[in-house]
Amino acid sequence: MADGSIKRIGVLTGGGDCPGLNAVLRAIAKSAINLFSWEVIGIEDGFDGLIDPSRNEPLTLDRVRGILPRGGTILGTTNRSNPFAYRAASDSTPIDLSEQVVKNIKKLGLDALIVIGGDGTLAIAQEFSGMGVRLVGIPKTIDNDLVGTDVTFGFDTAVVTATEAIDKLHTTAESHHRVMVLEVMGRNAGWIAIESGIAGGADIICIPEIPFRIESALAAISARDAAGSKFSIAVVAEGAMPEGGHPMRIDDGTTSPRYAGIGTWLGDQLASRTEHEVRITVLGHLQRGGSPSPFDRVLATRFGTEATRLVADGGFGQMVAYHGPDVESVPLADVVGTTKTVPPDGEHVQTARALGICLCD
Amino acid sequence: MADGSIKRIGVLTGGGDCPGLNAVLRAIAKSAINLFSWEVIGIEDGFDGLIDPSRNEPLTLDRVRGILPRGGTILGTTNRSNPFAYRAASDSTPIDLSEQVVKNIKKLGLDALIVIGGDGTLAIAQEFSGMGVRLVGIPKTIDNDLVGTDVTFGFDTAVVTATEAIDKLHTTAESHHRVMVLEVMGRNAGWIAIESGIAGGADIICIPEIPFRIESALAAISARDAAGSKFSIAVVAEGAMPEGGHPMRIDDGTTSPRYAGIGTWLGDQLASRTEHEVRITVLGHLQRGGSPSPFDRVLATRFGTEATRLVADGGFGQMVAYHGPDVESVPLADVVGTTKTVPPDGEHVQTARALGICLCD
Amino acid sequence: MADGSIKRIGVLTGGGDCPGLNAVLRAIAKSAINLFSWEVIGIEDGFDGLIDPSRNEPLTLDRVRGILPRGGTILGTTNRSNPFAYRAASDSTPIDLSEQVVKNIKKLGLDALIVIGGDGTLAIAQEFSGMGVRLVGIPKTIDNDLVGTDVTFGFDTAVVTATEAIDKLHTTAESHHRVMVLEVMGRNAGWIAIESGIAGGADIICIPEIPFRIESALAAISARDAAGSKFSIAVVAEGAMPEGGHPMRIDDGTTSPRYAGIGTWLGDQLASRTEHEVRITVLGHLQRGGSPSPFDRVLATRFGTEATRLVADGGFGQMVAYHGPDVESVPLADVVGTTKTVPPDGEHVQTARALGICLCD
Amino acid sequence: MADGSIKRIGVLTGGGDCPGLNAVLRAIAKSAINLFSWEVIGIEDGFDGLIDPSRNEPLTLDRVRGILPRGGTILGTTNRSNPFAYRAASDSTPIDLSEQVVKNIKKLGLDALIVIGGDGTLAIAQEFSGMGVRLVGIPKTIDNDLVGTDVTFGFDTAVVTATEAIDKLHTTAESHHRVMVLEVMGRNAGWIAIESGIAGGADIICIPEIPFRIESALAAISARDAAGSKFSIAVVAEGAMPEGGHPMRIDDGTTSPRYAGIGTWLGDQLASRTEHEVRITVLGHLQRGGSPSPFDRVLATRFGTEATRLVADGGFGQMVAYHGPDVESVPLADVVGTTKTVPPDGEHVQTARALGICLCD
Repeated sequence: MADGSIKRIGVLTGGGDCPGLNAVLRAIAKSAINLFSWEVIGIEDGFDGLIDPSRNEPLTLDRVRGILPRGGTILGTTNRSNPFAYRAASDSTPIDLSEQVVKNIKKLGLDALIVIGGDGTLAIAQEFSGMGVRLVGIPKTIDNDLVGTDVTFGFDTAVVTATEAIDKLHTTAESHHRVMVLEVMGRNAGWIAIESGIAGGADIICIPEIPFRIESALAAISARDAAGSKFSIAVVAEGAMPEGGHPMRIDDGTTSPRYAGIGTWLGDQLASRTEHEVRITVLGHLQRGGSPSPFDRVLATRFGTEATRLVADGGFGQMVAYHGPDVESVPLADVVGTTKTVPPDGEHVQTARALGICLCD
Repeated sequence: MADGSIKRIGVLTGGGDCPGLNAVLRAIAKSAINLFSWEVIGIEDGFDGLIDPSRNEPLTLDRVRGILPRGGTILGTTNRSNPFAYRAASDSTPIDLSEQVVKNIKKLGLDALIVIGGDGTLAIAQEFSGMGVRLVGIPKTIDNDLVGTDVTFGFDTAVVTATEAIDKLHTTAESHHRVMVLEVMGRNAGWIAIESGIAGGADIICIPEIPFRIESALAAISARDAAGSKFSIAVVAEGAMPEGGHPMRIDDGTTSPRYAGIGTWLGDQLASRTEHEVRITVLGHLQRGGSPSPFDRVLATRFGTEATRLVADGGFGQMVAYHGPDVESVPLADVVGTTKTVPPDGEHVQTARALGICLCD
Repeated sequence: MADGSIKRIGVLTGGGDCPGLNAVLRAIAKSAINLFSWEVIGIEDGFDGLIDPSRNEPLTLDRVRGILPRGGTILGTTNRSNPFAYRAASDSTPIDLSEQVVKNIKKLGLDALIVIGGDGTLAIAQEFSGMGVRLVGIPKTIDNDLVGTDVTFGFDTAVVTATEAIDKLHTTAESHHRVMVLEVMGRNAGWIAIESGIAGGADIICIPEIPFRIESALAAISARDAAGSKFSIAVVAEGAMPEGGHPMRIDDGTTSPRYAGIGTWLGDQLASRTEHEVRITVLGHLQRGGSPSPFDRVLATRFGTEATRLVADGGFGQMVAYHGPDVESVPLADVVGTTKTVPPDGEHVQTARALGICLCD
Repeated sequence: MADGSIKRIGVLTGGGDCPGLNAVLRAIAKSAINLFSWEVIGIEDGFDGLIDPSRNEPLTLDRVRGILPRGGTILGTTNRSNPFAYRAASDSTPIDLSEQVVKNIKKLGLDALIVIGGDGTLAIAQEFSGMGVRLVGIPKTIDNDLVGTDVTFGFDTAVVTATEAIDKLHTTAESHHRVMVLEVMGRNAGWIAIESGIAGGADIICIPEIPFRIESALAAISARDAAGSKFSIAVVAEGAMPEGGHPMRIDDGTTSPRYAGIGTWLGDQLASRTEHEVRITVLGHLQRGGSPSPFDRVLATRFGTEATRLVADGGFGQMVAYHGPDVESVPLADVVGTTKTVPPDGEHVQTARALGICLCD
């Protein structure tokens, strides 16, 4: 049933690292070797390893042994590289090296490619697909902002890390009658903020999808004070924005302007406008690290084996996807270029409101 | 939009305890009070608290404060009680106290009931629904064997606990060149075994859905020895059965005969038929305990708020359900009496086989 | 054997919160009630609850039930209050309310006091001891910088949290070939930095006791690059100082000048002077929170019961202390006013050097 | 200062595996190479790797990279091997291969040996020391029953695992009004039981040092029932014994008779003599596994570097030891052959009693 013309495939990881990448690589190598006896070549550092054809290594059964529970990616990754607009240095003029990549794919004898990455990496993959490269995509994002799939690996682990942080801040908040602000990842989408906020029992949640008003947060804190709960926990996505904009806006020409240190800014506002001591924690890269949660290990493994089957079945230009409880596939073309955000009137937000959480609108 | 005739609802937890029950109770209390100003009465110890109308307590906002991250249920539970066939003691003749329950529901002024439980508890709920009791069900099972919902809270936490156990056994197995057998929960369904086995990188998985052959396990161990991996990890669901039956069968007249200590039995077989030392761990009740995982906290919270909305909308006789990524509802009648098992040819099993895991068939 | 004149004792927690405080409170209440039938009064918010004699609550067996595994302190705490120099607001002139405290102790009928706190709180306790208040101290510090005791509860939990953070940063560092900087607590003493740095396998550790040179850190990174390890992890105590001082010095008139955001400063330096991407994480209050580690729960419990015995034996003016593996006591007078720092030539530093860790001197 | 005659050392791990062994191996390799430029040879599977001189591998910096946080031992181990009474198979007549071991040490060019193990392994080491082998010992025991050192690595991790188990059982016990029995490691010494029991808030603790009476346990459960706490947690060391002996005694001619399944036996007794449902969990090998706690990683690392220094200084026949807060050394001769048990009148037991924990005497 498998495509007999395939003998050797390449696999690469692009974009920010994410718990579960190694689990995917292991699943691809094991299933490709066990089911089809293919040779699997690991490309190093995303598409960089196809610009320079010497940067790769065989993914043998030995090489992938023991990597299932480990975070990160043994292949390396980068979130700066785009062969269609490659910059040798950050201030270089971008040049198009896409033809070189296509040549190197042939030179390396790769009959197909599996590309694991987020929106940026998959958009590049889709372009190569249009140039005739036979490839299959695997979605990867901490932020859960990819369309076409219910969820991807990495998100659950990030929510676990953020929720553990809220659990920890709770006791200090309560003991000191403080307001604790936690800034979590989510530049365009508030999934981590809203899920960890619900899971951790936050009192205030600010997400990019709902511009926030300081006055709402202040009112929520006052109401809690009045009810005898003299502390509050606020969870803020890094991309949350105050209504009407604010002076910390960083407009770098992309479609998604953002705000440096919104957690710090919000914390400072709350400190100056309440009687509470306020403490701010920026969770940062801790959300990307660590051993993947079992949920993410299983999902990553299912994605990896499904991608291998897709290659065998000739399902090129597709991306594997989770449509719970099944792993299926969707056209890459339907996925790239859009972002899955938290619906402001959706069930997550309604659930938060039902619990009495202040969304600050 | 809500049913104005409702002023006061009751809620109970039945069957074995499960991480997330307290999160459900908190969500019901908060949403019922915040959205509808209902009074919420917590019934103690499942239906027992409706047989004896003195066993209940108000679930106020104060009462549910701080319980989100805590395992178990503050209402208490029991997995022995059935008002339709009640036994005062384990050797008593069963009597039907269902009318008494219906009377007590009226006596307590409960305009509706939310019943949280597994297959047994929900079947009882369905019978009461047939007697005119206005109720809504919330599914709960560690084992993930309930139909009508992709998954329920508690399962993810159980898989986390089982996977952590496999991670721990791995290093001892490898250091001592041993075979380690881990028995996990799952009397009728192998979901915990197959998910934790995949997540933990097991070499052998035995599930109830696939009768196992010792010879297959022995062959898998030999093949690993030959390849230089002189240790193996076997994950066995408590309800796994050797092909053709075996002398440990416990036939207690139910539809699901089971085997006492199948993990121990399998371990003894492997010890006597290989050169390896074998060690057996029965994970048992550790799988039911502990703080719910963030996934389970969010799902339980969504179930609780959705059940409250269902009551308000008059959706009686329904059960809330997760059809990823949405929380919806299904008729209780469609759910009770069947069990969701691991499809022997389904994607989970195929993924395991692709990884080279021995399913022992 | 116990002092028969004691019927009722007070207990308070002062300074920053710390995992294990609740375990101490539980141990004091349980042992005082079980062994001596004393009444135990919990004073709220450190010495503030003795300035205002209405702020207290009985610590009954019921009240301390279930608090063992919970972080924080059910009594509340503050790190701003000193009855010898009390400020009603942050800009008020300080006034001496110590006599009022002594009167309130009598008014509340407290035959003795147990004071749980760090250097500041214990120094206040020692002053009250000099005024005739019968009290016993229990040391508390996340930073492990108290003399007279090998270690206190809270430190182990903080090191666990910091080490888990390093473990998480490791995979991102390696996958992206980055330099990751983690700033941990330790204004005067580098214990958390050096223990978590050793436990987490850091490459560079900066502690307050050893002024650091950027050039050393740069050389360490270069050496790793040359050896093929194209990533590095630096752990920096918040009180670490560059040799010769730097512009971020905050001289607030105390004996311990410090530097705002030394982790950020160091990270910026490394980013501008190497080819690596650098990411900075400030762990902050996460180190104070969470369930105490078993080590801390046991130590806190032993401290609490020993303090109760000390009160019974009339050992006033003493502080309980851990001289591994025993819990003993030392005079408060010998403890306050000095700080236990990491000896620059001691075994910890030598161990770090033996491992090849750069201390940046 | 170092012994110039040393160029090459061997290191082996013997006895049961234990979290921290890899951290020791890494510290030895790093410090021996960094400080003294020695070659370090890893001997496989304890003394077995000196009986067969082909079973070893160089411990280079590359080989020990990344092993710090991993449980187990990369060298392999066995708890069945004794060169002074070697059995090729379990039913063979023991023969003395000690001369062969001494010859192989020379043949391998090992100028000194570092032996990491528990009582059994260190006793063998001490015999070889008497035969002129230049060696240094490092203590290892999960059970904390080695004399000469306050504690060894592995114990803290085991207590963490046991305490987490108690935390998990607590919620089920409370929800179901059950008695939960947890059997933990400790054949001769009750350290894990008493520390995890105190840390987890157990109600009943049975240790080998205090023969237990069922009647005491029953009375403790009744007293809790009467006080409204309708559940109890019992922690039982595997070597705990009922007063007067019992039919499960296994007398295998060693000095430490033990009881198969004492947890199960005790649970059955409690189930038949109370109204409670009882559930029993045998924690088993989970206690040996997993990533070492930061405490254990630091202690193991300090032991490894100190052992290297001892070899350099010619401190042969010594064992490194923790005399908190310092790492020192003691003669092996003072250590082997005795066991450090929990003093029945010591502070740990007194603390447990002060908390109201039933020791069942």
